[in-house]
Amino acid sequence: MDTLMKDEVFKAFTTYAAIVVLKMLLMGPMTAYHRITKGAFANEEDVARHSADQKKKQLRTDPAVERVRRCHQNDLESVVPFVLMGLLYTLTGPELSSALLHFRVFTGSRIFHTISYVCTLPQPCRGLSWIVGMVATLSMSYRVLSTVLLP
Amino acid sequence: MDTLMKDEVFKAFTTYAAIVVLKMLLMGPMTAYHRITKGAFANEEDVARHSADQKKKQLRTDPAVERVRRCHQNDLESVVPFVLMGLLYTLTGPELSSALLHFRVFTGSRIFHTISYVCTLPQPCRGLSWIVGMVATLSMSYRVLSTVLLP
Amino acid sequence: MDTLMKDEVFKAFTTYAAIVVLKMLLMGPMTAYHRITKGAFANEEDVARHSADQKKKQLRTDPAVERVRRCHQNDLESVVPFVLMGLLYTLTGPELSSALLHFRVFTGSRIFHTISYVCTLPQPCRGLSWIVGMVATLSMSYRVLSTVLLP
Repeated sequence: MDTLMKDEVFKAFTTYAAIVVLKMLLMGPMTAYHRITKGAFANEEDVARHSADQKKKQLRTDPAVERVRRCHQNDLESVVPFVLMGLLYTLTGPELSSALLHFRVFTGSRIFHTISYVCTLPQPCRGLSWIVGMVATLSMSYRVLSTVLLP
Repeated sequence: MDTLMKDEVFKAFTTYAAIVVLKMLLMGPMTAYHRITKGAFANEEDVARHSADQKKKQLRTDPAVERVRRCHQNDLESVVPFVLMGLLYTLTGPELSSALLHFRVFTGSRIFHTISYVCTLPQPCRGLSWIVGMVATLSMSYRVLSTVLLP
Repeated sequence: MDTLMKDEVFKAFTTYAAIVVLKMLLMGPMTAYHRITKGAFANEEDVARHSADQKKKQLRTDPAVERVRRCHQNDLESVVPFVLMGLLYTLTGPELSSALLHFRVFTGSRIFHTISYVCTLPQPCRGLSWIVGMVATLSMSYRVLSTVLLP
């Protein structure tokens, strides 16, 4: 176990994986914040203390809440594959410089993606940052599959 | 490989990670059960054997189905980061007692979260259990990042 | 680290995990393709270059887009638990033949599931392939939990 954490590539993976997972995790409180400030809830028990009239008004979808939720969903679809594939990639023993490039490009692209999504930056900000993150993960997948499949 | 499974912290991680992943996995059959008993499907091919009139009725959303699906989605957003971060946390070599505390608090909070969600317990049952699970994961993230970033 | 990649079971896990994660990842571009060809977007900034009249028309949900998204969501709910549980399962040191059986059955079932979903094959194609994948993951969970919990 110590051996893994002494490996430079594994340490780099741990750092960047922790950063992007943490970023993804913080979308949850951000959704909660928008739900509460905008008064847009999904469950009846969340509005139980309000009057019957208020209840109906608060059980609704709000554009700001839905935007954060779509961003969170995109994180699940991009960050989780990155961490899973990145772990396998790290175990194939890549060069430190090459690994750092992949991890940094992905992490940067996802932070920019979140800013683009939440702040509604004009396209192609969000589209490009999504593609860059995708390419980083695909490049790691190629390395993983060529390591295990090619002799 | 044997070395990992002989480590007490890793064994504890394996136990609790398997329990929460299994719990998350069982939300799938629960959704299927509610879809079938309530007759609320999302795909045309699922209602193909019914008459045209029945078809339209069955292609609908049902509050009970949507509730289970929201609970499942919350699991994806909470359990997956816990397992990914928990693996990195385990590899930083924490104290067994501290690790067990994190894993048990998280597992307990998620089981209580599912009960609160599916049985519609009054708030703040669901909200509190969600926050407790979130805090456990954030505390592990702090340990992971401080281990790799601080000398 | 080298030790892990020299292990035959771990190599098999890496191969099949990479294949299913890659398959899941490619649902993203497939959603983008359908959104663009069908003209069905979720965000205002995606349709900014169109006239006000066109904008409203393009901010809509499309059955083909929603179908691919449901398939993607099902992947998140099935493939991610498989990879997480599969990693723990691999570390319990199973027989290579037994591990290969689990990994191949799961991978095959998920590829068939995607084809069934995207091409709208009649039921029970999709249902059965979903159940087969679920059973493979449950069987691995049983092995993981019995290894760590039984002396």
